[in-house]
Amino acid sequence: MTMEESTIKKRVVGVDISLDATSYAIADVRGNILAKDSFCTEDYPEIGAFISALCDGIIQLVETNGGFETIRSVGVSVPSANFKSGSIVNSPNFPWKGVVPLSALLRDRLGLAVAVANNSHVVALGEHAFGCAHGMREFIVITLGTGLGSCIFSDGGVKLGSDGYAGEIGHTCVEHDGRLCGCGNKGCLEAYTATKGIIRTAREVMAESGETTKMRRVPKLTPRVIAELCDEGDALAIETFRRTGEYLGLGLANYASVIDPEAIIFTGGISKAGKWLMEPTQKAFEEHVFHNIKGKVKFLASDLDEGDRNILGASVLAWEVEEYSLFK
Amino acid sequence: MTMEESTIKKRVVGVDISLDATSYAIADVRGNILAKDSFCTEDYPEIGAFISALCDGIIQLVETNGGFETIRSVGVSVPSANFKSGSIVNSPNFPWKGVVPLSALLRDRLGLAVAVANNSHVVALGEHAFGCAHGMREFIVITLGTGLGSCIFSDGGVKLGSDGYAGEIGHTCVEHDGRLCGCGNKGCLEAYTATKGIIRTAREVMAESGETTKMRRVPKLTPRVIAELCDEGDALAIETFRRTGEYLGLGLANYASVIDPEAIIFTGGISKAGKWLMEPTQKAFEEHVFHNIKGKVKFLASDLDEGDRNILGASVLAWEVEEYSLFK
Repeated sequence: MTMEESTIKKRVVGVDISLDATSYAIADVRGNILAKDSFCTEDYPEIGAFISALCDGIIQLVETNGGFETIRSVGVSVPSANFKSGSIVNSPNFPWKGVVPLSALLRDRLGLAVAVANNSHVVALGEHAFGCAHGMREFIVITLGTGLGSCIFSDGGVKLGSDGYAGEIGHTCVEHDGRLCGCGNKGCLEAYTATKGIIRTAREVMAESGETTKMRRVPKLTPRVIAELCDEGDALAIETFRRTGEYLGLGLANYASVIDPEAIIFTGGISKAGKWLMEPTQKAFEEHVFHNIKGKVKFLASDLDEGDRNILGASVLAWEVEEYSLFK
Repeated sequence: MTMEESTIKKRVVGVDISLDATSYAIADVRGNILAKDSFCTEDYPEIGAFISALCDGIIQLVETNGGFETIRSVGVSVPSANFKSGSIVNSPNFPWKGVVPLSALLRDRLGLAVAVANNSHVVALGEHAFGCAHGMREFIVITLGTGLGSCIFSDGGVKLGSDGYAGEIGHTCVEHDGRLCGCGNKGCLEAYTATKGIIRTAREVMAESGETTKMRRVPKLTPRVIAELCDEGDALAIETFRRTGEYLGLGLANYASVIDPEAIIFTGGISKAGKWLMEPTQKAFEEHVFHNIKGKVKFLASDLDEGDRNILGASVLAWEVEEYSLFK
């Protein structure tokens, strides 16, 4: 890029690929979103068709909003991504199996530099640039939803580890010989605290108790429904999140004891269960965490707008393609 | 320090304080130990007397080996140390309780800059400078003995965390509601894999089994004795280390899944149990670690001389007092 080009290209494209929706937007360096569009991810179970749909969408958005001469680069947020290889690797939830070289596929089609990172890493970049982690050098991000993702932001940057997989708290073991996890291991934190695990806990709670609960009559149990029943005072719904919080607090305590963060920042659908999940989580956390850091680690909820959080983070990632100063 | 002084002062003092012995040496920048002495730590249960003995020893060693004009600074390795505060904090094993401002006490008496760090952090510095981690940017050190210490060496430096406590794997939980640990928490890895925990496991194994074992007749069981009985084919001694390895492998897998290191380096007395501990540890590790890093993390034994390992690391620490480039 010549000096002239680099001074003109002051916008980036941020992309957020999640299981249900794929969103993409043009953003400036201050985190202002200038134009945005999205489509349904599930409509494209075949990766070639998905890449075409995404690139067609980006091209149309860019051409009707200033053109490619204004765009510096592209940042992409996607679960199971490996920043070092620019690929989606062995996703347990997307229909695209094995290794998907996402960064190369998009770069070839768009002719722009593309950086790809795990959604939790991207959220950490966004929270650090524009959200509740602004100015912090040591924190952890936890994304609670279909899966349990996380990111270690340490010494002022996203910690990658030797192969780019650092931060996999979802597959740390919290119950010796416990539940079989989708990853093939037993007793993983994700098997207790992501969507399927919470539903399973609700079923266990109902099977053990004779108490009446509206959970028995709900056609499709979800963490959101369980949280709503908690608000109504449903004892077994409350017990479901209490048990979930016990495991989450234990897993986070193990994590914090080795990382010593200033704060843990929660995002994702399940984190909206609020006090029903967070109070038992924090209780178990303080019970299990290393004594010298008890009472010191802040629990924070992301304060970025939910619809834009990952796109904003992806736009920060896009600004990183030239030097990666925020990756360690 | 003037330019002239800084070019003259090319030696440092490395100090290793462990539960049984306190050693101190003069070393050069290449890790050559030029003079060395030691005394019995347990002779000084009172901290003031201990500091006097250590300073008297260092002063005598330095004055008979080139004098203080050759010494740049002092580095100290000690369990339960916090590098950021230069103190020993809430040691579960030393007789000196609460916070001991070791760095300030030594600096006041010796008139030299003093850096103090946790023994596991110090071992990581030594292995990185002179041992099997030379050139590595991402590794973990595990010290197995009276306690279970560890250090995360990440992005080319010792990871401290927000308060200097990063790396406390010994107090991560590997058994829900498990054994009570000396730290007050339940189910800590240290309660299963450090000296007392291994002896307790041996007693449990003997209580459960009617098999004959020489372990029943040993006046004082130690991990070393159990390892020797393993070499003789004693089935219950072998079972003791198998169970220990199951917990150690699980704890290390949780650790590696969030850190993604290139290697784990083992030091400390218990690590000398060799294959009796390491084979079940590695088996459990591979069973539990996050699938994308299975088979990738190397298990290494420290290759530095045991008697000099911590002193060498402490000498690297001493060179760090001016800028701390190896701390993150």
